[in-house]
Amino acid sequence: MGGRLTWLYQLSKAGKLCVPAMNVNDSVTKQKFDNLYCCRESILDGLKRTTDVMFGGKQVVVCGYGEVGKGCCAALKALGAIVYITEIDPICALQACMDGFRVVKLNEVIRQVDVVITCTGNKNVVTREHLDRMKNSCIVCNMGHSNTEIDVTSLRTPELTWERVRSQVDHVIWPDGKRVVLLAEGRLLNLSCSTVPTFVLSITATTQALALIELYNAPEGRYKQDVYLLPKKMDEYVASLHLPSFDAHLTELTDDQAKYLGLNKNGPFKPNYYRY
Amino acid sequence: MGGRLTWLYQLSKAGKLCVPAMNVNDSVTKQKFDNLYCCRESILDGLKRTTDVMFGGKQVVVCGYGEVGKGCCAALKALGAIVYITEIDPICALQACMDGFRVVKLNEVIRQVDVVITCTGNKNVVTREHLDRMKNSCIVCNMGHSNTEIDVTSLRTPELTWERVRSQVDHVIWPDGKRVVLLAEGRLLNLSCSTVPTFVLSITATTQALALIELYNAPEGRYKQDVYLLPKKMDEYVASLHLPSFDAHLTELTDDQAKYLGLNKNGPFKPNYYRY
Amino acid sequence: MGGRLTWLYQLSKAGKLCVPAMNVNDSVTKQKFDNLYCCRESILDGLKRTTDVMFGGKQVVVCGYGEVGKGCCAALKALGAIVYITEIDPICALQACMDGFRVVKLNEVIRQVDVVITCTGNKNVVTREHLDRMKNSCIVCNMGHSNTEIDVTSLRTPELTWERVRSQVDHVIWPDGKRVVLLAEGRLLNLSCSTVPTFVLSITATTQALALIELYNAPEGRYKQDVYLLPKKMDEYVASLHLPSFDAHLTELTDDQAKYLGLNKNGPFKPNYYRY
Amino acid sequence: MGGRLTWLYQLSKAGKLCVPAMNVNDSVTKQKFDNLYCCRESILDGLKRTTDVMFGGKQVVVCGYGEVGKGCCAALKALGAIVYITEIDPICALQACMDGFRVVKLNEVIRQVDVVITCTGNKNVVTREHLDRMKNSCIVCNMGHSNTEIDVTSLRTPELTWERVRSQVDHVIWPDGKRVVLLAEGRLLNLSCSTVPTFVLSITATTQALALIELYNAPEGRYKQDVYLLPKKMDEYVASLHLPSFDAHLTELTDDQAKYLGLNKNGPFKPNYYRY
Repeated sequence: MGGRLTWLYQLSKAGKLCVPAMNVNDSVTKQKFDNLYCCRESILDGLKRTTDVMFGGKQVVVCGYGEVGKGCCAALKALGAIVYITEIDPICALQACMDGFRVVKLNEVIRQVDVVITCTGNKNVVTREHLDRMKNSCIVCNMGHSNTEIDVTSLRTPELTWERVRSQVDHVIWPDGKRVVLLAEGRLLNLSCSTVPTFVLSITATTQALALIELYNAPEGRYKQDVYLLPKKMDEYVASLHLPSFDAHLTELTDDQAKYLGLNKNGPFKPNYYRY
Repeated sequence: MGGRLTWLYQLSKAGKLCVPAMNVNDSVTKQKFDNLYCCRESILDGLKRTTDVMFGGKQVVVCGYGEVGKGCCAALKALGAIVYITEIDPICALQACMDGFRVVKLNEVIRQVDVVITCTGNKNVVTREHLDRMKNSCIVCNMGHSNTEIDVTSLRTPELTWERVRSQVDHVIWPDGKRVVLLAEGRLLNLSCSTVPTFVLSITATTQALALIELYNAPEGRYKQDVYLLPKKMDEYVASLHLPSFDAHLTELTDDQAKYLGLNKNGPFKPNYYRY
Repeated sequence: MGGRLTWLYQLSKAGKLCVPAMNVNDSVTKQKFDNLYCCRESILDGLKRTTDVMFGGKQVVVCGYGEVGKGCCAALKALGAIVYITEIDPICALQACMDGFRVVKLNEVIRQVDVVITCTGNKNVVTREHLDRMKNSCIVCNMGHSNTEIDVTSLRTPELTWERVRSQVDHVIWPDGKRVVLLAEGRLLNLSCSTVPTFVLSITATTQALALIELYNAPEGRYKQDVYLLPKKMDEYVASLHLPSFDAHLTELTDDQAKYLGLNKNGPFKPNYYRY
Repeated sequence: MGGRLTWLYQLSKAGKLCVPAMNVNDSVTKQKFDNLYCCRESILDGLKRTTDVMFGGKQVVVCGYGEVGKGCCAALKALGAIVYITEIDPICALQACMDGFRVVKLNEVIRQVDVVITCTGNKNVVTREHLDRMKNSCIVCNMGHSNTEIDVTSLRTPELTWERVRSQVDHVIWPDGKRVVLLAEGRLLNLSCSTVPTFVLSITATTQALALIELYNAPEGRYKQDVYLLPKKMDEYVASLHLPSFDAHLTELTDDQAKYLGLNKNGPFKPNYYRY
């Protein structure tokens, strides 16, 4: 969960939110597209454009197995990388196991990996100590929600030399000659070194526009000074608007089936807690 | 969502539930293991044990892209089948697109597919009309939540001959000699023709036991006559109990990180609406 | 390369072969179907029918990354297992790296793996020493070309107890209670504990029949007392006979294209050394 | 098989080759790296850098299922594209089936696909007639061995407008406004719009250097005025030189095993016809 959103929920909890707010980030389509599907592609794109690294056979550690981490891992695994995961949450850790990744502490693999990717939303996940132990040419980058995941500040010390080798790519050089390849100075790789497909922008923009329209049009009293998730029916509407570009054909419930399931034929089709 | 669960929510809505109930089925670990991870394996197992079919190159239509459908599709795709999806929900349909499956109406592909699998929780998804149009040797089976998904009753008519070829496998023979291979008479393939790994049983049993303990131990008033989801912390606990069998090592938050994220170091680690 | 085939080539080399022979095993279609495609499915089937093991999250070491090993690894990786490879051949080892598998010596991982699979065609790949170091409940099986890959004889000693737990499954029990799960007494898992799809049989039988017809019909002198590979055109013919069952539509070369490529429009389409 | 190589074999066949030549292109490591493994990554890279297209859900037709086509298809499938194959060779077509791709004639899918990729080594695979039938925004590119696969000349006619939208990207505009996105004017996408990883260059350069050294050092008479494949032992040597960068550990044959297999412990490990 991103920083601004945490802050919004904290405001709300403290009773200091003075208007209703929509947590658009956690609507299903936005979440899956901006995070899972988009990062599945942008991790490859961002690494390729900056470093020309070959993925096949590379050992990679991905910190965090949320939606972003899941996307990164799926893509890297598919292209022949060997991926390790670090996690704090036992549920996500178990998912990583079932998806075929070893769950380790960062220290267990930091000496052997070729690439380190952070996707935690947390801070100081990669510390100076970790950076000191990386092998020569290790690539370090951040796909998470902030620029705090890698402790870049700790690298701004006199004994280390920084060499800008191309736009968004720095070699940080240790006294013994070891180089760590730092991308985008620890800022978001997907935004700094990759492009966002128009399809993803369309999903996001549609979701945001619908949320604003809903807040604007809602009858007095529907929304209080709190943070709301997008009504599921709107989430489904965003999805349905994007199906034709895939030539996807939805099936319609018969009256009999709708009655059997206790659903309206036009949705919403799932309970609120459904996880997709 | 299964039939008994729908019924429980309907009871609750009607004010007729006379004790608190836990919706254990929708806890994260239970849901993912019983549905996604287990079905990913049991669809292969169930088809193999009953029909010895080779998956490579087979055209398969999977009705429903919920957790069960996602599991079935991932496994079949990985083993070289060409998979089509039918869906009523635009969000799940969009997920199917992004995962590389064509979303079609059943009628568009029914003449060409080698295998039909239902995973909808709905009824009469495969009708007599569909069955009439299937090609010779088409395999039909159900991985969903009930025995209603395939309209098996419509096949019990005088002009069709049933031939039991082995346990759980019937050939239904049309007057022109066409045979449809019906598995488990339309009941659940994963329960009838496949085994459930002890690991999945352990996840399920642990979740159920913890839910009962929680309901029993909860102070008066915590739970009313309603249906509840398992508290996230217990869900995380179930997961953490199963990590050692994978030799998975969790990372612990530092005090500083926990404070930054606004989390307790021992969890729960995610907001309630988190989808995993 | 299987034992009988080695023997055939040795006979030929020694000048002791008294008739022409076709090495049908190494024709492309036979090789890919019997080995790669068939084993990709039968490793899952064989393990499931004997042990009901869940593949997700399991650590597996596969000895040998030939066609059989490649098939086993692809399937297990796809279902969420973490797979390690042992290899003697640097080319196959490099392929394993590029496909996303760590290449190790058996001793490096023998203590941690849940499943050991041999696919080498070699002997004593898994020794008593390895078996002594396996963890409790480790599953050991052979997908290779002989029953010599696992040193089963070394397990027939007084201090170990054998317990037959079901057909084709023995628990070998160490004095400290540790159990190793030995499948098919070290014989071929795919033949002993899995079925061979009719499609694979059709490929194999067609290839063998065509080879016999060719040897029988060939004009005097075309074949000497040596071992021959199936003429490529027949290999292509076997493949083309099996395409209709996938509703696959071949493209035909135009005259102009055939001339440009220096090919006959009816094949053969590849030089003899082509690897597919 | 590339144009220059065809020409070399034609020279040899015509008795006009005046020096020995090594067909380095068909050595195993070179072949797999330059074609399969490299193209698996460069198709994604080339498409992303030029068009920012999202792969998920896109319908793609790949013409040719040789090593290059196999690499492209594996990557695109893994990232959620729906891939169709065209093939002239029944063996490669059968492989495509078993790998989960529908084998079609180009005309069957040309109206519906979002991307057309040629990897055939042939000429005029994509004709003006195909181009006329593509849908708006269809991307067309070539990953094969020549610039003849797409009939680009046929697009240089007065009724079509060319618009250069960025380096290596042209929009060809039909009178009705339809645009086809042509990459690199039909030249090789992987060379024009993507980078070649240093690892691949190292494999290729090592192979070429060893071939030259072998030709130079070979005793009189070993090589005649013909085209030779690299001796397998050198191929294995190239592979073994690149294993340490993956921290891959080869297993050594015991004396007993080498004798059993009839192999030298240092290789070569496979017969010449082995396909990897």
